Amino acid sequence: MENFPFAFILPTPSLIPSAHDNHIERRLSALRGQFSDQAAYERILAQEDTLLYEVYEIQRPHESGELLTGISIVHPGKVGSEFFMTKGHFHAVLDTAEVYLCMKGEGFMVMENPQGECRVEKLAPGEVLYVPPRWAHRSVCTARLEDLVTFFIYPGHSGHDYGTIEQQGFRKLVVEGEAGIEIIDNPRWSKKGS
Amino acid sequence: MENFPFAFILPTPSLIPSAHDNHIERRLSALRGQFSDQAAYERILAQEDTLLYEVYEIQRPHESGELLTGISIVHPGKVGSEFFMTKGHFHAVLDTAEVYLCMKGEGFMVMENPQGECRVEKLAPGEVLYVPPRWAHRSVCTARLEDLVTFFIYPGHSGHDYGTIEQQGFRKLVVEGEAGIEIIDNPRWSKKGS
Repeated sequence: MENFPFAFILPTPSLIPSAHDNHIERRLSALRGQFSDQAAYERILAQEDTLLYEVYEIQRPHESGELLTGISIVHPGKVGSEFFMTKGHFHAVLDTAEVYLCMKGEGFMVMENPQGECRVEKLAPGEVLYVPPRWAHRSVCTARLEDLVTFFIYPGHSGHDYGTIEQQGFRKLVVEGEAGIEIIDNPRWSKKGS
Repeated sequence: MENFPFAFILPTPSLIPSAHDNHIERRLSALRGQFSDQAAYERILAQEDTLLYEVYEIQRPHESGELLTGISIVHPGKVGSEFFMTKGHFHAVLDTAEVYLCMKGEGFMVMENPQGECRVEKLAPGEVLYVPPRWAHRSVCTARLEDLVTFFIYPGHSGHDYGTIEQQGFRKLVVEGEAGIEIIDNPRWSKKGS
């Protein structure tokens, strides 16, 4: 037996649900136009259509009174200075909330409402985040190595509206600046476009 | 320094939410008539109005589209052979679901619907339990020393109906038998009474 450092793994919970109905994988190509640094986006995409995030959904009827749940896993990484993130969306039925419970990792939930009010809230294990009705939301993973894992619950009749955010993104971006993580204004966003 | 065994505490998360709007304490006197062994109930109550469970609620409008969340803590103990439990309830708006995520401890969720179908599901840390619309539910702590702690989420317009269950309880009881935990028929429950 040689006398060198060695490593092994003590398995930790994977946080992939033991039963689920859908497994969604969102890759870089699905977020075309969403990252600020388009040149960096094209450079990475030319190499590989990188997996940005995954969602494990538990299926239930899409009706009021039912609850839709699942696990969201945002992988670590950046496009230019902007951290990997979900597409982000409003609910199609605007007056529906969503609850997130952070299970693992670190990151932020970027939120805004149609009146233009913004909130960017930190996510860390044990933190419960209430996204009130009418607030669009996107999660962002800011760790260097670790996934951001959240458990989410929203009303069965909520639906999704991705189109509004796709037009010019959220008003705020989460980027790596010289001094660390920074929340900055989205240069692509303009009142004219809204 | 003497050479005897000694113990100290490494603090673990308390699971009491850092912010909450209501703290509900339910004591033995609030569950009069709900435990099978009435003599044991009266003996314990004569000594002390024991704390059975606590709920920390986060307040939101009681409206469709909103989500009501909180932490439920059922303490360990028994009345006769029957484990400490919550009052249990249907939702006043029957067609509303509830999601439980077990954070700590061990126990069961006792459930039944108006058609008389019953399910008793185990709760352990990491387990997510979906209580579908129309199912009454009660949680039961079966540990000897440890609290059963769950995080719950239900639609804002659900409301509570405690009265139906108060009449004759659930069809199933969770008790300590000679061989361990047993799920038995509730002797107090009769079709006539329903």
